[in-house]
Formats: sequence, structure tokens, C-alpha cells
Amino acid sequence: MKKHALLSFAAFGAALVGTPAYADHAKGLAWDITEGLTTEIGPRQGGTEAEARARVWAERKLKALGFSNVRTETYTMPTWVRGEERGDIIAPFPHKLAITALGNSAATPAEGLTGEVAYFNGWQAFKDARDEDVRGKIVFVNHAMKRAQDGSSYGYFGPVRRSGPSLAARKGALAFVMRSLGTDMHRNPHQGNQSWEAGVTPIPAAAVSLVDAEHMALVAKRAVTLKQPIRMKLLLTPRNLGPQISGNVIAEVPGSDPKAGMVVIGGHLDSWDLGTGAFDDAAGVAITTAAAHNILKSGKKPRRTIRVVWWGAEEVGLWGAKAYWEAHKSEPHALVSESDFGADRVWRIDVKLPEAAKPLGERLAAALAPLGIAASREVASGGADISPAVAAGVPVIDLQQDGTRYFDLHHTPDDTLDKVDPVQLQQNVDAWTIMLDLVANAPEPLLNEAGK
Amino acid sequence: MKKHALLSFAAFGAALVGTPAYADHAKGLAWDITEGLTTEIGPRQGGTEAEARARVWAERKLKALGFSNVRTETYTMPTWVRGEERGDIIAPFPHKLAITALGNSAATPAEGLTGEVAYFNGWQAFKDARDEDVRGKIVFVNHAMKRAQDGSSYGYFGPVRRSGPSLAARKGALAFVMRSLGTDMHRNPHQGNQSWEAGVTPIPAAAVSLVDAEHMALVAKRAVTLKQPIRMKLLLTPRNLGPQISGNVIAEVPGSDPKAGMVVIGGHLDSWDLGTGAFDDAAGVAITTAAAHNILKSGKKPRRTIRVVWWGAEEVGLWGAKAYWEAHKSEPHALVSESDFGADRVWRIDVKLPEAAKPLGERLAAALAPLGIAASREVASGGADISPAVAAGVPVIDLQQDGTRYFDLHHTPDDTLDKVDPVQLQQNVDAWTIMLDLVANAPEPLLNEAGK
Repeated sequence: MKKHALLSFAAFGAALVGTPAYADHAKGLAWDITEGLTTEIGPRQGGTEAEARARVWAERKLKALGFSNVRTETYTMPTWVRGEERGDIIAPFPHKLAITALGNSAATPAEGLTGEVAYFNGWQAFKDARDEDVRGKIVFVNHAMKRAQDGSSYGYFGPVRRSGPSLAARKGALAFVMRSLGTDMHRNPHQGNQSWEAGVTPIPAAAVSLVDAEHMALVAKRAVTLKQPIRMKLLLTPRNLGPQISGNVIAEVPGSDPKAGMVVIGGHLDSWDLGTGAFDDAAGVAITTAAAHNILKSGKKPRRTIRVVWWGAEEVGLWGAKAYWEAHKSEPHALVSESDFGADRVWRIDVKLPEAAKPLGERLAAALAPLGIAASREVASGGADISPAVAAGVPVIDLQQDGTRYFDLHHTPDDTLDKVDPVQLQQNVDAWTIMLDLVANAPEPLLNEAGK
Repeated sequence: MKKHALLSFAAFGAALVGTPAYADHAKGLAWDITEGLTTEIGPRQGGTEAEARARVWAERKLKALGFSNVRTETYTMPTWVRGEERGDIIAPFPHKLAITALGNSAATPAEGLTGEVAYFNGWQAFKDARDEDVRGKIVFVNHAMKRAQDGSSYGYFGPVRRSGPSLAARKGALAFVMRSLGTDMHRNPHQGNQSWEAGVTPIPAAAVSLVDAEHMALVAKRAVTLKQPIRMKLLLTPRNLGPQISGNVIAEVPGSDPKAGMVVIGGHLDSWDLGTGAFDDAAGVAITTAAAHNILKSGKKPRRTIRVVWWGAEEVGLWGAKAYWEAHKSEPHALVSESDFGADRVWRIDVKLPEAAKPLGERLAAALAPLGIAASREVASGGADISPAVAAGVPVIDLQQDGTRYFDLHHTPDDTLDKVDPVQLQQNVDAWTIMLDLVANAPEPLLNEAGK
């Protein structure tokens, strides 16, 4: 009776808001978590007080759902936060840019910074530029990232953001501005992290919306014809807060056979600060938690313990991932899997399993096929938060989500609840439930040399 | 030879930017005008210096194209301009709103204004509200406008914006905030005009993005359950500049029969200030000008003079429309037609013609059908800039554009060139060219009691 009350959706709603009157869970637990995190917390950047509120929210929710060993494990991390941000083309044609500072950007002077633009049509053109063509100027790098179901174009075009600011600083640029890594055509810039290479003095670094980058290309063409420079003004006032507290929230479904190792799943609790982090990654913690909850409420104890981790501070440097692995690497990890690619349907499964567990891979393929999921020949490589475990050789499964529209929303003000399709979200939960059931109960050995 | 040089696309590009090297007019004149206005001028709000730059650009372009009697006719008008704008839900869950001041909004105090929110789920609920439920509060009005091919939902839901601020002020509200009139789900608010009713003291009035309105609905539901008020902070610093100069730019293709009256077409030159006004209404002036230019460059003088008007200050109160009609109402207007509903394809033709010109209507229907355009039984009513002429009884034709996505973009930062589909834009030019050719050369009498 007690268990039933705890697990019923109505009781869950009541635990959250004080009365069951408003509880409306027709869309299921994954929707409820996604709606709750995005509505009641919203943006929750790693290291900020918003992420701390999100941890309190997460612990309360996981306890109310009946998970075991619910706790928060904290760590400290350097924290950079946004300030004001404005950008304008001031010549030859005035134009206000939709712009955002990239992670760890330096600030401009308080009154802003004005300079001539050195425009580059792509990463290679910028890499090839002579220092004298860049020195003292505001670098602008355009590119041609396009949408892809598997998200591969993000990796290919990613160096513009990850290495562009440092390269611009090395070449003596005043500031670095790029076309956002994205595939939409809306007036929203895409946030993203970058780290300064050793020895580089930080400069202001920012991204403009894809729309503004298209505009800039037309302005650049005219500037050549007119033989007039493009001039830009930037005002960015981010600052470093120094070391701040962040944390991972952990919950478990205990298994019956400790020697079989744990199955560790989850997503990341933190988000970037412009949107409410629905696709990235409220949906990921929601999907994995709802699937684990399905195992829990089935009443049949799985062979392996399922550990659900809501990682902290992923966006700003994988601080939660590193802290988790440092604390837990000596425990037996049978398999890791993360959901961190939005809320659209799972279309493919990739696995990396020990040879002896090949039959498990075949059972997974057969069980997921009715959901429209194809087994691939790709070797699973895992999400960012499980990368330390994967690097250590822990087996991994990727339930690949359809990323066709992921980079329309990724790291933008548009990453909000309304983008989540409840039907596709539920397909994710169904796929994860099937996968968890098979993996947690598989008779095959999964612990390899990395586990114990 | 001179004429040919003037009219060739390469020469046209050269006139604009100094050298033909960059000229790339593969997409046609309508594209070229739309790209030029949005790139070289950008936002051009009525009464501002940007609109003045747009008039210079327009005159130069229309002269370079070989039109006759190219001139600007100025008038003065009161001018309101945007300042800073920020909005935040501060309780029970903090959330930053994408917000914009509505036309003629009052300013908040410089430090902002904080108040409890009175939330209404629709126009009727707000109209029915007792004054004591609104007094001293920030009114928030949600609604459920949906997309429609003919744009009719804008008219139906429009009173929220047009009458909402005045009604809120009458009921004693501190400020008025609404869900934008729009159909997208992006983090961009929709600008729009509103006028204060007589005797009303202006209050701050603003619109939030549709995404933020959906968010507000979820917050409102929780606020009821939690029995906690929603509190909001607003900072809006618009100001009135007093009377400023605006103007209409006019060009003609002279006809052979002055007694047959003129055909007056065009769109509006001004735009709102958040986007670059591609759909609203660079495309409209571009389509109508390109069609008139097709008649001009055919070398065959039409029976009726075609007058192309790029109206000023439409968005902020039809100042150009009123000034035009005041100056020209004594001239013989045989027919008026405006393009002001984006850049997507013409799908329907509505006419209002004298009984004697019924055969012209039949010829138009037959000639446009191959372009996928259906003749309707609706009586044409005309665009906003020709409303004084239509009210005076001048015959009118509406080439109705597909408005399915118009209110995704309308009055937002997203109204930019990239949204224009060159194929659909050209279909508009083709339809307008056919219509102009038939109307300008029609043997039927078109001057009714309104013309001379």
C-alpha cells in the first residue's frame, strides 16, 4: 500500500507541489520530469545556484519515486557566468546582431570594443590566414554546418568553436566571433563551451545566430565590392566566479547479484543558461529515470543494480563526469549508457559488449526492432558523461536518438519544453525499459577487465 | 542602348554598389530588391532615420530601373521608439521572458516595475474580469491563435493587442503583457502597434514570445495549486520623439490613355524594428516593382499609367496611406492593389470590379489558373495602404498570398531574408505581371463614381 501510494502518479505530483489537485500525468513520468525541471527550475548552469536548486528538486523527486540510496555527491569547479551581451555591425550597413558569449570568453571593456572585421568563409580559410591579416581585428568565421540524423556534422564543424578562439588569440585578434554551431534559421545564437589553450591570453569570444551569419556573408560580399571595411562593436561582460559547488544526484534500483556489476545510466542535470534545457538534457534524465522506474515498479528485482546518475556540470567541462568516475571507478561497472541527444525517437542501437555477451546484443536487436530501431554495425562510444568509464573499457550501449532537429535547438533560448514531442519521448522510455530489462537481467558476464 | 544598359541586371547592381563585379541577379529583380533593402538598410521603422535612408535607397533604385516620375512625397507624423526591454517572472519560479514593448507603450520607471500577475486565459476572460481583480496588478492575457492560410486568425485574436492595453489601463492595471499574436514556437516576441483610447492614461504594454506564454500557463497552473502569487518585473524604456518626417516613394510607367485612369500598386517601405522586414514588406515592394518593371521593359506602353507606391509608416498607423490619399484622391484611380502578406505563393484571386468589367475578372481567372491560383467568390478588400482608396469605392484586386507561415515571422526578429523562398517570390512576380498586363490594358471602363 505504501509502495503503491508512493509510486502512483497522483501521489508523485502531490509530493512535488503540495496537493494532488493539479497533477496531470497523462503524458507519463518522463514528461512530468521534463516539464517539472524546465518549469520549476529552468536554466541550471553548472556551478550556479540554479543548479543547486535543481539538485534539491532531483533528490526530492527520486526519493518520492521510491528509488534507493538517493544522494547528492558534490565537488567544486571553476565557474564562468554570462553578463551583458550586445553586438552590432556599424559599417558599411548598420545591423544589430543576435549574439552570445562563448564559455570562458573574456570580457570587453565596459564601454565595448570596436574594430574592423576580418571575415573568413570557413575554418580552413581562417587557419590559412596570415597573422597580419588578423592582428588587431575582430575575426568572423562562417561555416556551412548542415543537419544530419546522427549529429555527425557537429563533430566535423566543431573545431570552429573549440579551437577558433584560441587560434584567433594566437594570431593577435582583438576578438573572435563565429556563426553558431547549429542548423536552424532563427534569430537565436547557440551557446557553447570552449577552453583556452595553454599560454593563450583570453579574448572576447562569441557566436551569432545563423540568420546573422547569413546576413554577414552578404555584407562581406558588398564590402569587397565597395572596398569598405566592415566594422563591428561588441559588448560582453561575462565574469569568473571562482570555485563553486556542483554535484551529481544518484539513485538506485538494487539488484540481486552484486557480483554481476552495476548498470549505470542517466543524463546530465545541468543545462546552458539561455533556454530551459528541455532537449539538453532534462529529457535525458527523464527518459532514463522513467525507464529505471518501470523496472522498479515491476516489483521484480533485477539481477544487476541499476544506478541512475543525474550528472552535474556537463556543459561547462564534464566536471560531474570526472568527479563521478574518480569516486566510483573501483566499483564493478557492468555497462554504461547515457541519454543526451534530445527527446526525439531512438532510431538505432549501437553496442560495445564483451565477446561472451554477443547473444545479449542479438536479443536487444530483436526486442527493439518492433519500435522501429535498427541494430547497426557501429561500435558504441557513449555520451560525454560516461566517457571516463568507456575510456576505461566498460561495455556501453548507445540508443541513438534522431538528431535531425537537435542542432536547431541545442544551446539556444529555444531549447524549451514545447519542443518535446510526448509520443517520441515515450518511445525513448519504452526502448530504454526494454534495454534495461535485458541488460540488467542478462545471464552473460559483462564485467570486463575494467570492472571487478 | 542607353535603355538596355539601365535595365540590365548587371548595370543595376553597379549603380548600387559601384562595380558590377558582385552583381548576382540569378534570382531576379524581386529577390535583388528584397536582399538589398534587408541587407543595406535593414529595419526601417516609420519616422526614423533608417526609414529616411530607405527612401534614398528606393528613389535611387527606381530611377536606375528606368521608371518615370520617381519622387518622394513627405509628411510628418508622431514617432515612438523602443528603449531597453526586459521582463522576468520572479516568483514562484524565476524565468527570463523574451519580451518586447508594443507600439506606444508607456515606459516603466528607470529601475523597473514589479507587481503581482493577474493571469487570464483568453480575451473573453479578461474582458469579464472585475476591476478589483486587476487593479494594481500586471495583467497577462494568453490566447490560442492558430495558423490559417488566409491569415484570418490574426483578425479574430487581434483585439488582445489592439484593445487590451487600453482595457487594462481602464481597469486600473499597473501594466499589460500578452502572448504575442503569432503562430511560431520560438523565443522571439512579436511587435505590433496599438493606440490608446481617448481618455486613457498609457501604461507599459508588452508582448512575450509564444514559448514564454506556454511557460506562463504552466506557472499559472502551479501558482493556483501552491496558492502563491506570480510576481513579474518589467523594464521598458520606450520614448516619444515627437513629430518626425516620413514619406512615400512613387514611380510610374506612363500609360497611353490618361482618361482610362491609373492602376496603383505597391507595398510599404517601412518595417518594424526587430527584424529586417523581409516578409513585411520588402517582398511586397519588390514583387510589385518587379511586375511593373516587366511591363516597362516589354517596350509596349500600357493603356493605363501604372503607379508604384512604396508607402511609408504603415506599421505605426498608416501615415503614408493617409498622406497619399489626401494628396492624390482627386486623380483618376482605375484600380488599386497591394502586396503586403509575405513572400509565399499567390493561391487565390479576389476581385471587386465594376459590373461592366466582369469580363476582365473572367480573363484574370483564366490567365492565373496555370499558376495554381484559384478565383474566389470573396469580394476583394485590399491591403492597409490602399484602404482609403477602397473605402472611396475604387475597384480593387487581391492576389492572396499563402499566409500559413506568415504569423511565424510577422513583426519578429526572425523576419529576415533567409525566410524568402526565391521560387515562391518569383511566382508572385509572374502573377502580378499577368494581372498588371490585363488590368492596365483592359478595354473595359474601370473608373467608377470614386474616380473621375
